[in-house]
Amino acid sequence: MKLKLIKYTPDPERAVAMSARLCYSAIGAEELEKNMTDAQVGNLLEKLRSMGHLSTFEHVSFTFAIEGVSRVLTHQLVRHRIASYSQQSQRYVAEHGFEYIVPPSVAANAEAGAKYQELMNKIQQTYDELVALGVHQEDARYVLGNATETKIVVTMNARSLLHFFEKRCCQRAQWEIRNLANAMLDEVKAVAPRLFAQAGPTCISGGYCTEGAMTCGRLAGIKAQK
Amino acid sequence: MKLKLIKYTPDPERAVAMSARLCYSAIGAEELEKNMTDAQVGNLLEKLRSMGHLSTFEHVSFTFAIEGVSRVLTHQLVRHRIASYSQQSQRYVAEHGFEYIVPPSVAANAEAGAKYQELMNKIQQTYDELVALGVHQEDARYVLGNATETKIVVTMNARSLLHFFEKRCCQRAQWEIRNLANAMLDEVKAVAPRLFAQAGPTCISGGYCTEGAMTCGRLAGIKAQK
Amino acid sequence: MKLKLIKYTPDPERAVAMSARLCYSAIGAEELEKNMTDAQVGNLLEKLRSMGHLSTFEHVSFTFAIEGVSRVLTHQLVRHRIASYSQQSQRYVAEHGFEYIVPPSVAANAEAGAKYQELMNKIQQTYDELVALGVHQEDARYVLGNATETKIVVTMNARSLLHFFEKRCCQRAQWEIRNLANAMLDEVKAVAPRLFAQAGPTCISGGYCTEGAMTCGRLAGIKAQK
Amino acid sequence: MKLKLIKYTPDPERAVAMSARLCYSAIGAEELEKNMTDAQVGNLLEKLRSMGHLSTFEHVSFTFAIEGVSRVLTHQLVRHRIASYSQQSQRYVAEHGFEYIVPPSVAANAEAGAKYQELMNKIQQTYDELVALGVHQEDARYVLGNATETKIVVTMNARSLLHFFEKRCCQRAQWEIRNLANAMLDEVKAVAPRLFAQAGPTCISGGYCTEGAMTCGRLAGIKAQK
Repeated sequence: MKLKLIKYTPDPERAVAMSARLCYSAIGAEELEKNMTDAQVGNLLEKLRSMGHLSTFEHVSFTFAIEGVSRVLTHQLVRHRIASYSQQSQRYVAEHGFEYIVPPSVAANAEAGAKYQELMNKIQQTYDELVALGVHQEDARYVLGNATETKIVVTMNARSLLHFFEKRCCQRAQWEIRNLANAMLDEVKAVAPRLFAQAGPTCISGGYCTEGAMTCGRLAGIKAQK
Repeated sequence: MKLKLIKYTPDPERAVAMSARLCYSAIGAEELEKNMTDAQVGNLLEKLRSMGHLSTFEHVSFTFAIEGVSRVLTHQLVRHRIASYSQQSQRYVAEHGFEYIVPPSVAANAEAGAKYQELMNKIQQTYDELVALGVHQEDARYVLGNATETKIVVTMNARSLLHFFEKRCCQRAQWEIRNLANAMLDEVKAVAPRLFAQAGPTCISGGYCTEGAMTCGRLAGIKAQK
Repeated sequence: MKLKLIKYTPDPERAVAMSARLCYSAIGAEELEKNMTDAQVGNLLEKLRSMGHLSTFEHVSFTFAIEGVSRVLTHQLVRHRIASYSQQSQRYVAEHGFEYIVPPSVAANAEAGAKYQELMNKIQQTYDELVALGVHQEDARYVLGNATETKIVVTMNARSLLHFFEKRCCQRAQWEIRNLANAMLDEVKAVAPRLFAQAGPTCISGGYCTEGAMTCGRLAGIKAQK
Repeated sequence: MKLKLIKYTPDPERAVAMSARLCYSAIGAEELEKNMTDAQVGNLLEKLRSMGHLSTFEHVSFTFAIEGVSRVLTHQLVRHRIASYSQQSQRYVAEHGFEYIVPPSVAANAEAGAKYQELMNKIQQTYDELVALGVHQEDARYVLGNATETKIVVTMNARSLLHFFEKRCCQRAQWEIRNLANAMLDEVKAVAPRLFAQAGPTCISGGYCTEGAMTCGRLAGIKAQK
């Protein structure tokens, strides 16, 4: 997987704090940006987060370019609707020489790994043959596997990201999208640490777990530590 | 493909007309439903449509159960974000004995068809072998093809459907989702003909084409007829 | 306030349960509706709710006609974006003889009440005079108060409603929209009791409070009872 | 009205072009930003716009601080749901000494203007008296008029803005929000001229008018010029 945070709203922490400040003070928009120390920004963000006043977090957005992920992942990813996507088209881009994802559990089993690779080769061969037989690539792609690598550009605002991290950083999330979510969290924490201070699965962000009997037990560990 | 309109807002045409009437009259909500002849409902819908006042069309929703479609289709479908989806999970439902879609262009070519079927058999075999080797089905599914059949329940409101039909009933849309869109349009026209009277690609709904040099020429035909 | 649930997806509990069942079983859409006892529907809904798998709750929608509420209320209401609205227009509907909302705290204070009523009369008089002077009603309405009664039709799906109830049934919500939210909750509970069994502020729906030092103390009471 | 574009995605034209390029080429995300001349960016944007492929326009967002507008305006503004808002609260911010908007048609009529101002003074007086009588400002605000000035921070992505401009730059839109929309358009054109080259009402953006008999006639003028 290759992930790059390619664009984001400049000075995102201050942008959120400014928007919140407008709601609760008689101050004008002109002055919003000034006269706010960095510590004040941090305190306000902490307060907004603890009270669940997250609408102000929507004013800042983050755009990622993602490569080397499977269509298993993107089919799950695009289910998050408060977001924008541009994905490489299998309709317009030919898939001669496609790359593919190998799940760790397959890679760890020599026999499974060999069968997996053999099938991928066979898929490539059939795709090429179909195209050679005159089948348009938009139909030939029906033989491509879920494993086929794809590229996608994703934009989410900070509130939508917090929700995404709650769902997808959870130990119970599917491994590939969990890896992506964790990598995205690292990226945004690097540029807006206070917006994403407690971002993560609900055991971290909210101190609760909705997985019932399927829980990974992390919450119990967090509570024990306290 | 198997499509069934399983639920929808009762009396959808009247529901839309009532909502619109509230906006432009001093009449109370109680009286909204009464005193409106069927012809008045139709005239109001026609007026709303022609002026592009489609927000009232959002008050009615339609829920479809869809079977026997590929994951090529659903990956495109779920990109429509003003909608709700519940899709059969390849993570929780085993795919021993999966069915698959064959594109017409492949079916029409004996050699391509044979290669296609052979590959599908090989995919099924590999999936089964991986599971037998202890690979969890959530990882084994990486070998499944785009062609694999899936099931999905979709709910859209009438305004979102109109947009969906503009994009996906177009001759330039990919054949499988176009077939679905046309079938969905037939279903909703049967129960709410006046809401969807001019539904379809933009050549029908709006009298224009955005496909430029790629146009199918249908608009020219429509104009010639007039 | 006059509230009426004018339309909703038929058999909403079963519709949600069916959609969920599709995701986790190999059963076809045709059979989804059959072979599911009422108790099975209830158990499945309970499970979905406890695990926070609320996307299936989106397949059912509820449409309300609301009268006799202020524009204070509707300005807050329409901030809920996953919803559809049709509101009576002050631009197209004249406001000669408008009705208005009196907050209970004003009604309870004789002097305040008298001043309030006097001002409302003055507003009506000025509105009428402006129109008589040739000011169009779309500009005359600038003098109308927040208190002016309005009518609105609202449609939300069950998931969006659950969120709305969490925010607006809370004791800390503004009194008028809280009254509306509680009345809406009563309406939907009457037709879909198991979808909305634990609906309400987060102290009820989730067992937590985000109001910090401003808490009404209800959560403590709930916990004490347990 | 005071309007300030306070934040936006850096280099927005290139960001959109990059996202589009990913969809239609085999190029990697790393290389997306490089090797694209400014002319290529412009050509690609022009192509996307002419074909209505606007999803890539969603990757860039613009945040405005708006002051000195009425609650007539903000009640309309927040109806645009694909956007984020933070508005000054009349619940938490006291309105002693509020400012107000005067519609031009009222200002132009001496008698109307005098009555308007007299009423505004009376509203201020009553608000202050109610608060002095112990009515909380969250209830006293019921007497405030639509004309009362408010402040709001708004964030929209470029696609949502294009839609906003189509609806609100139209001559038939209400004057205050039209003034705002035109001012917002000026701001974004200054920083992303090629994203918003044909932005405006549908007579400009699409060459059609949906206002029927109510048309302002601008489209006829545009066509006559061609």
